[in-house]
Amino acid sequence: MHILNLDANASLPPTKAAKDALIASLDLEGNPSSPHRLGRAQRRLMDQARAAVAHAMGGHEKEVFFTSGASEGNRWLVDAVLATGNLKVWSTTLEHPSLAKPLERCQKVSQPEQADIIFATAAHNETGLITDWDELIQRTKPDAILVSDISQAMGRLDPLPQRIDALVCSAHKIGGFPGVGAVLLRHRAKTLKAPWTGGGQEGNLRPGTEALNLIIAFGAAAADIGAMREANQALAPLRDHLEQALLKAWPSAKRTPEHGNRLPNTTAITLSGVDGEALRIQIDTVGVCVGFGSACSALAPEPSPSLLSLGLTPQEARATIRFSLCPGTTREIVEEVIGRLCTLIFVAIHVTIHLWIQ
Amino acid sequence: MHILNLDANASLPPTKAAKDALIASLDLEGNPSSPHRLGRAQRRLMDQARAAVAHAMGGHEKEVFFTSGASEGNRWLVDAVLATGNLKVWSTTLEHPSLAKPLERCQKVSQPEQADIIFATAAHNETGLITDWDELIQRTKPDAILVSDISQAMGRLDPLPQRIDALVCSAHKIGGFPGVGAVLLRHRAKTLKAPWTGGGQEGNLRPGTEALNLIIAFGAAAADIGAMREANQALAPLRDHLEQALLKAWPSAKRTPEHGNRLPNTTAITLSGVDGEALRIQIDTVGVCVGFGSACSALAPEPSPSLLSLGLTPQEARATIRFSLCPGTTREIVEEVIGRLCTLIFVAIHVTIHLWIQ
Repeated sequence: MHILNLDANASLPPTKAAKDALIASLDLEGNPSSPHRLGRAQRRLMDQARAAVAHAMGGHEKEVFFTSGASEGNRWLVDAVLATGNLKVWSTTLEHPSLAKPLERCQKVSQPEQADIIFATAAHNETGLITDWDELIQRTKPDAILVSDISQAMGRLDPLPQRIDALVCSAHKIGGFPGVGAVLLRHRAKTLKAPWTGGGQEGNLRPGTEALNLIIAFGAAAADIGAMREANQALAPLRDHLEQALLKAWPSAKRTPEHGNRLPNTTAITLSGVDGEALRIQIDTVGVCVGFGSACSALAPEPSPSLLSLGLTPQEARATIRFSLCPGTTREIVEEVIGRLCTLIFVAIHVTIHLWIQ
Repeated sequence: MHILNLDANASLPPTKAAKDALIASLDLEGNPSSPHRLGRAQRRLMDQARAAVAHAMGGHEKEVFFTSGASEGNRWLVDAVLATGNLKVWSTTLEHPSLAKPLERCQKVSQPEQADIIFATAAHNETGLITDWDELIQRTKPDAILVSDISQAMGRLDPLPQRIDALVCSAHKIGGFPGVGAVLLRHRAKTLKAPWTGGGQEGNLRPGTEALNLIIAFGAAAADIGAMREANQALAPLRDHLEQALLKAWPSAKRTPEHGNRLPNTTAITLSGVDGEALRIQIDTVGVCVGFGSACSALAPEPSPSLLSLGLTPQEARATIRFSLCPGTTREIVEEVIGRLCTLIFVAIHVTIHLWIQ
């Protein structure tokens, strides 16, 4: 059975440019922190990648440092808030666990108007919901530090307004490889105290030898960000077709949330009265890969806090399927997914009846 | 001019097995935290790598979690000490900055006998000095938690005694790629409180999508650890030859430290009365890549605290050259290095005289 991957938001398959760049990097020797020739050659390549990543994020290369991914970037920013001290924090209810959980250690306020620093994901990984940053900016203090995790938005939407002070991203969400990401700091975000000490890498902001090969591939993926965005925008009609077909086939199904601007590749479909775990296993059995909660927490049994915050019951949150199309997803793949999932529902009902009779 | 790389301790060139494994991994899709087929396939590959890395570290796969490298592993352990609370810490003066600097936040004691947790690098990156763990264990409390950064030792020495509770390592020091490492926790180290929150990856110990491709390559390098250790042990006579030739050619040169067990591939040579920065530039000019201080801090102007702790003056610490041979280093390469560096010294004297006359 051919596996059908509609789980782009968990991780995008790496692009050809990223693979080629990684292969071309395999014979590099040295350490980019070494001042000798081998080190300088690595640093030049790293700075080329930094420029490409910065441009794709909507900023300048001097504003960017590399991390091991968005989770680390989010933790860095929370640690910076704590190291700086006396900052009142507001965040949306749709933040990724890698941000939401560390933020529990901060002093939170209930309204953005009250906050010294605002965290708002550019787009929610589970539903594709897009934050209206223009509206949010109107509600924040003029000197508030604004932070956005752009992991899901970077390859699908235009860059955020320049007013946003700090951005967090991850290579494997834009066609690079997992294990590398970046943080962009500008304007007021530069007043945050750097929280980590160690070696002097990345302008003394992030200790640890940089993941050179992954950074080079990240740069190659970032250099193609325009094509990536076009390919993702072109997925909207396919996503809509999938969504309509499933909502029609499944009587208890609804889109989550029912309104709001979304990423072009993402839909979250909630099935009332269905056991989420059984649903997950059955969808897996027919070879369709989709998301249930964010991948980082999908092995945990708790319902997604973000989905609960959108008004779902715990049962509904567990039975919410995230379909996220990849740039390579074709109409044939979508039709095949629709076909396999209609079969699935009959099996589900059959099994339920079978158990009932027992 | 052919570049001669005697800077293995900064980063080892990746092995063929690591490169091949990385190339074979490029078409993998998914996220190892996803419970579906693509995710499970990734998890299996990751756990194979985990078993190989654990074995190379001298432990079991259930004790190992992956990090972005040794710097992160060291920071994780310091944060765990702080999260656990009430732990008196002792460390050697030879710890890497990625450990020594975070440790400044901990409650330090001056004798290992007084400590609840001991940090001692298995081998010092700048001089190759090997910690005598058997002797140190005699001096510690029976219930003290013992921690060792084995980054430089893992590919060159046999595993440490099982008594050591926690180990930290980095892939690019054993022939893998930079951007991945591991922490091993066993015995009393499991009583430490996990300091970081976020996604549930790596048994809830380390949030963030794992660097799958680098982990697979790390596993391939770790699977060859026996051959790596043999190749490194075989470098000792070449290292000794290089050392003797330079000590003979340079009247003011001495080995640092003059006594003590060292890694087979490493020698640190100190030149009294020579400007370290001029020396660094001139060695670079003749195409020889060596270390000055740990690579992570080599762009910083301060003399190495570790070298000062060994009794060197700031001038001597700055003028200490670390030669670290790679498994591929041949006698021809060593002779060529000796030849180029003898020329260099004449240039150095010439320049000094020239500036004096001006």
